[in-house]
Amino acid sequence: MRNILIKIQYDGTQYAGWQRQKNGLAVQQVLEDALSAITKEKVAITGSGRTDAGVHALGQAANFVSNCTVPLEKLPIAINSIIPDDIRVISATEVAADFNARFSAKRKTYRYTVTWGKNAPALYSRFSWHSYYPLDITKMGEAARLFEGTHDFNAFMASGSPVSSTVRTIYSSYVERTNIEGCENALHYYVTGNGFLYNMVRIITGTLIEIGQGRREIESISDLLNVSDERGVVRAKAGFTTPPNGLTLMSVDYTE
Amino acid sequence: MRNILIKIQYDGTQYAGWQRQKNGLAVQQVLEDALSAITKEKVAITGSGRTDAGVHALGQAANFVSNCTVPLEKLPIAINSIIPDDIRVISATEVAADFNARFSAKRKTYRYTVTWGKNAPALYSRFSWHSYYPLDITKMGEAARLFEGTHDFNAFMASGSPVSSTVRTIYSSYVERTNIEGCENALHYYVTGNGFLYNMVRIITGTLIEIGQGRREIESISDLLNVSDERGVVRAKAGFTTPPNGLTLMSVDYTE
Repeated sequence: MRNILIKIQYDGTQYAGWQRQKNGLAVQQVLEDALSAITKEKVAITGSGRTDAGVHALGQAANFVSNCTVPLEKLPIAINSIIPDDIRVISATEVAADFNARFSAKRKTYRYTVTWGKNAPALYSRFSWHSYYPLDITKMGEAARLFEGTHDFNAFMASGSPVSSTVRTIYSSYVERTNIEGCENALHYYVTGNGFLYNMVRIITGTLIEIGQGRREIESISDLLNVSDERGVVRAKAGFTTPPNGLTLMSVDYTE
Repeated sequence: MRNILIKIQYDGTQYAGWQRQKNGLAVQQVLEDALSAITKEKVAITGSGRTDAGVHALGQAANFVSNCTVPLEKLPIAINSIIPDDIRVISATEVAADFNARFSAKRKTYRYTVTWGKNAPALYSRFSWHSYYPLDITKMGEAARLFEGTHDFNAFMASGSPVSSTVRTIYSSYVERTNIEGCENALHYYVTGNGFLYNMVRIITGTLIEIGQGRREIESISDLLNVSDERGVVRAKAGFTTPPNGLTLMSVDYTE
């Protein structure tokens, strides 16, 4: 038996998210069906974590245990030849027997793409959120840095999510200007952490956008971090939840 | 009555092409329905030309005649607020009464995106064609230049298309390396001409790809240009027709 780690890219638009479910086709199901067909085994894969419907990935990670004898360098080719073009397996490597794509993950990096100005980019609409109001990217960058460190992110979680602790460590959180064809202005928000609460990146992004639009002060962030009581009340004071389509899981890191 | 020129971007994936038709929703229909709702008139728009299902646009042009009193700078906002995000009107200007988006067009520029290498880009699959064989971009660039000038492009037209003349002038035809996330290699093929035959850009691109893959000699192009007899036979000697999704109409130019 080999324990195999695969890295995956996907355009999440057409899928009901990462995780296999009853209603709608999930990325996990596409990969499990392909692997089961190739290996003639019933393959179950473990992802590094769920991504919601509409969220994309350039570096999702998952592992599965199999007797499969296909050489590892041929495995992505074999899988890619029988799955849709909007999901691509980019690598396969053998890992230790106790490796688990979810529990062994040390860091994850997400990116959220925001465009602004008169023109929203039609060709990039499934990969970004557009603000018709101008954004002050300098203020947003300043605010983004405030999330770095170990904090209680209770206010930045979808209300009612079951979780044992709302404390997470953010290693980096920054905003970078970028170019996207068909619009005047675009930025990427990059955030790397040891884990993320449900909707956390999308709520942080919404909060940064409100700061960029001048509808919120940078100082408001300190009132939202490390507040562990009054769950629903605190959440209501953070920013709006940006839609899933602007979000991309960039990488999952397994080394310390 | 005003004659109004609009410039449009669209992600063509979900549409049955530009031109209104019985089966499937066309971009033209989305725009005509929106304009009719805004102006309370039955608006008919004339596009610079058709684009096939799956083909995209960053600079499609169309005109319509209307009594519409909406200020021109507000018109894109009004239209965009009631159409899907994957179609965006980027500008509206008033033009002379005799202006016709199709017949007044002097030049059009198309771009075809090709990626190659081990990894195909999942997030860009609807906007590009992938070659698992390596491409020699220098050879492709050299070959691309041979299309410049006035030639009979009979061999580069879908067989059986009704057309009075197969002679077109290509002002520029070149290949440029670019970066696309999630794959090792990418190029854009740009071509500007006074007009294009049906599938012409996609057949030229297919011919260039065969040269890049080493399956065709650069010299074969001279045997394909300016051959006006034996229609079907000559077409069969040109390259394959690349799929529509890699193609984008970049601009339509109305000045000499």
